[in-house]
Amino acid sequence: MRIGHRPKRDVRVTTHVALVARAFGCSGFFLEGDDGYLNSIRGILRKWGGAEDFELETVKSPRSLVKSWRRDGGVVIHLTMYGVNIIDKESAIREIDRPILIVVGAGKVSRWYYENADYNIAIGNQPHSEVAALAILLDRIYMGRELGIDFGDARIRILGTERGKRVLRA
Amino acid sequence: MRIGHRPKRDVRVTTHVALVARAFGCSGFFLEGDDGYLNSIRGILRKWGGAEDFELETVKSPRSLVKSWRRDGGVVIHLTMYGVNIIDKESAIREIDRPILIVVGAGKVSRWYYENADYNIAIGNQPHSEVAALAILLDRIYMGRELGIDFGDARIRILGTERGKRVLRA
Repeated sequence: MRIGHRPKRDVRVTTHVALVARAFGCSGFFLEGDDGYLNSIRGILRKWGGAEDFELETVKSPRSLVKSWRRDGGVVIHLTMYGVNIIDKESAIREIDRPILIVVGAGKVSRWYYENADYNIAIGNQPHSEVAALAILLDRIYMGRELGIDFGDARIRILGTERGKRVLRA
Repeated sequence: MRIGHRPKRDVRVTTHVALVARAFGCSGFFLEGDDGYLNSIRGILRKWGGAEDFELETVKSPRSLVKSWRRDGGVVIHLTMYGVNIIDKESAIREIDRPILIVVGAGKVSRWYYENADYNIAIGNQPHSEVAALAILLDRIYMGRELGIDFGDARIRILGTERGKRVLRA
């Protein structure tokens, strides 16, 4: 599963989208925009792992990406609050057995994506956040298993604890 | 359930936290910081509803808020990647029958919160996003029911659809 995303002015929300993609089990992240945006993600991969499991790439034409993804047999899910509520599509989406590209817009998304995605999915039909929407979609697809993710190349790992901070350094 | 949050430099992530709180069923949002940060949320409440169901407030001393919340019989959940994985606490949290205050930090959070929360909960022990963490916690507590939320005073409602955008205006 991969994520396509275009940043608006703000790199922080884009960073959150990419970190959720990594932490919740995606295998890569396509960014429409400048490669420099990816530097903070690269820093996370070096420290917390995932350089081998999570590929970062910039794309100049996200429409070409969507077209070629579908031509190659993949499925495109566009997250939008105008789409069909995930409540009504959860099992259909979980049964997809082809590579999934999730398109996460920032700000207004062109009508083209609505027309060319296989699914337009809403995580509820209220305005909230592309970061939250992506997290919920991935949680529904992986049914919570993603929350136990571990990266073989991590230099630092957290040992979850009731109080304070415990970390393991490799 | 209410949310306490302190913004860092960036108002956009704070806005996302507040919008997730509203869309996922919380009854209010306490912000450590300037009231002006809340203006974009007020705009959302006027248009999409929730002015009666979702209270906005700024607080000068979030520690006093935590103390008084607990003194009044409420439970405080602090979201942190260093906490106990939600996987292991989901049913305990769902069984809480007292008012819940969820503390969502931005950046480094003082040790005080780790020591004074009833629960330090991690949505997975990887770095990702306070927006995603809040969404997943609320989704686990409400078991997906929050995704059908509707606000009586909404001026505009989305009718989720397979393609395009359909809205109802009151």
